[in-house]
Amino acid sequence: MTGEAEFIDHLRHIATHPAARGLNDDTAVLPLADQTLIITHDMMVEGVHWLPNADPADVAWKLVAVNLSDLAAKGAVPLGVVLGFALAGDNDWDARFAAGLETVLAEYDVPLLGGDTVSVPADKTARALGLTALGRATCDTVPSRSGAKAGNKLYVTGAVGDARAGFLLAQSGGAGDPALLTAFHRPAPLLEQGQTLAGQVHAMMDVSDGLLLDAARMTEASGLALTIDLHAVPLSQAYIAQHGDDAEARLAAARWGDDYQLLFALPQNEKPAIAATPIGQFTDGSELSLRYGNKPYPLPEKLGYLHR
Amino acid sequence: MTGEAEFIDHLRHIATHPAARGLNDDTAVLPLADQTLIITHDMMVEGVHWLPNADPADVAWKLVAVNLSDLAAKGAVPLGVVLGFALAGDNDWDARFAAGLETVLAEYDVPLLGGDTVSVPADKTARALGLTALGRATCDTVPSRSGAKAGNKLYVTGAVGDARAGFLLAQSGGAGDPALLTAFHRPAPLLEQGQTLAGQVHAMMDVSDGLLLDAARMTEASGLALTIDLHAVPLSQAYIAQHGDDAEARLAAARWGDDYQLLFALPQNEKPAIAATPIGQFTDGSELSLRYGNKPYPLPEKLGYLHR
Repeated sequence: MTGEAEFIDHLRHIATHPAARGLNDDTAVLPLADQTLIITHDMMVEGVHWLPNADPADVAWKLVAVNLSDLAAKGAVPLGVVLGFALAGDNDWDARFAAGLETVLAEYDVPLLGGDTVSVPADKTARALGLTALGRATCDTVPSRSGAKAGNKLYVTGAVGDARAGFLLAQSGGAGDPALLTAFHRPAPLLEQGQTLAGQVHAMMDVSDGLLLDAARMTEASGLALTIDLHAVPLSQAYIAQHGDDAEARLAAARWGDDYQLLFALPQNEKPAIAATPIGQFTDGSELSLRYGNKPYPLPEKLGYLHR
Repeated sequence: MTGEAEFIDHLRHIATHPAARGLNDDTAVLPLADQTLIITHDMMVEGVHWLPNADPADVAWKLVAVNLSDLAAKGAVPLGVVLGFALAGDNDWDARFAAGLETVLAEYDVPLLGGDTVSVPADKTARALGLTALGRATCDTVPSRSGAKAGNKLYVTGAVGDARAGFLLAQSGGAGDPALLTAFHRPAPLLEQGQTLAGQVHAMMDVSDGLLLDAARMTEASGLALTIDLHAVPLSQAYIAQHGDDAEARLAAARWGDDYQLLFALPQNEKPAIAATPIGQFTDGSELSLRYGNKPYPLPEKLGYLHR
């Protein structure tokens, strides 16, 4: 059997949901009750989204996790994923990828519904991967970026910066605190938290490109101003042990992406349905600004990771 | 504005359906009544699926058309598409692509629901495009590859081979019969025909990788044998003018893909709901065989275009 046939066979073994039709058909067929479909698509490209020495199983994990994180920010329950995979002639890589795909889909109980594989020209060996994730909404008003109101507080569900610390460890050889490496290699989409919050909040996003950049997007989409207190930005003990907890360390954590915490807005006196840290305040206006405790803090030119 | 920002802006201009949320959110949000969702994903890679001198607007057309053709074979009505696009630093290319995308989506009245764009290192990465198309089923039993029965006839909705003739013209400079060039550059997904047939047929596929290869897949999935009469395989006048209509010309047409006609199976005495040509006969057994009129004809080793 060729490597490609083996890869497809592995996918077939994963794709046990009836909607996938055993990957023996051209489409997936998914009966739905009366509901709202949530659809997201993220691509990852070798040399852009992962380090050359990355474990392909981690790449598969991340490709699924970043898409599920988008569903989480809508409070959606995943219905399935569809994979686009460019084979670049390295069977071991593909097999590790398929194994990682199986692991992450089992972890979050998400069916593989279908997809497409193509072989890329051997002289252009960088791989491009795409994943479409489908979910069903769990509440009538699906949260958006634009739902924040003046007077709302901005919350984040947990520590940011661990993915940054893990990236720096991975880049310099891969030794160090396993919790930080895991945060970078195998981020956890906060599906349950998103489902719990979705009925309560009207603005929610996941932190994918950096807390400041994503918060700026929510602020702009909502037509408001936002002040974030850097001092309130939560860090993990593992991050602090590596990088400290001064203003510079917190700013670095808040400018980095890949954390997949959830950011959401709530009225001043409303308590979030799950544990979360208030880090900012929306007001009328149109700018993002920072403070550190009681003092204004300069906004850096680059707020996060910009694919675009 | 950078080329990338322009490209996204163009997509935003196309994505007017409310479910797309103006491409200003991380997901699309699509309310559905009680129905069955049809999902397909096809990738296209530079150097594999299009010629280096291809018009990017044609590439966009084909990317959408091949996915819609998969929906057509299920009798589905398109609900929308999600695009994965790798920018390779050529703004003119991207702009032409976006224009072609707009044209084909308008032609088939299909909303752009969302997607992802990433910049790729141009020296290392072939441009890779992915599209997920969503549709809703129009009948209770969605046709599959595996629904053919012994005694069924195999039908094809129209001429095959035009895409092959168009490819050969394009490869040798692009001059020649415009109908053939259009068949190659801008194939038409047979959405209405598929919707009409879906309630009648139990096995249906589109001809994407070659009539013989796709018919062999239906035969295998149905656990049957099939004999195709090459002499009955319909050719266009334009194809015949270029390549003749002898056994060799018909075989070449039947081994080539990209035609996007529909193949379907019907009981012996049942008349298809739309005009179509009977070209074969399913029987008990497990092999595909050919005849040319009354004489057996040898099966070629390669039945079509195999991406995998």
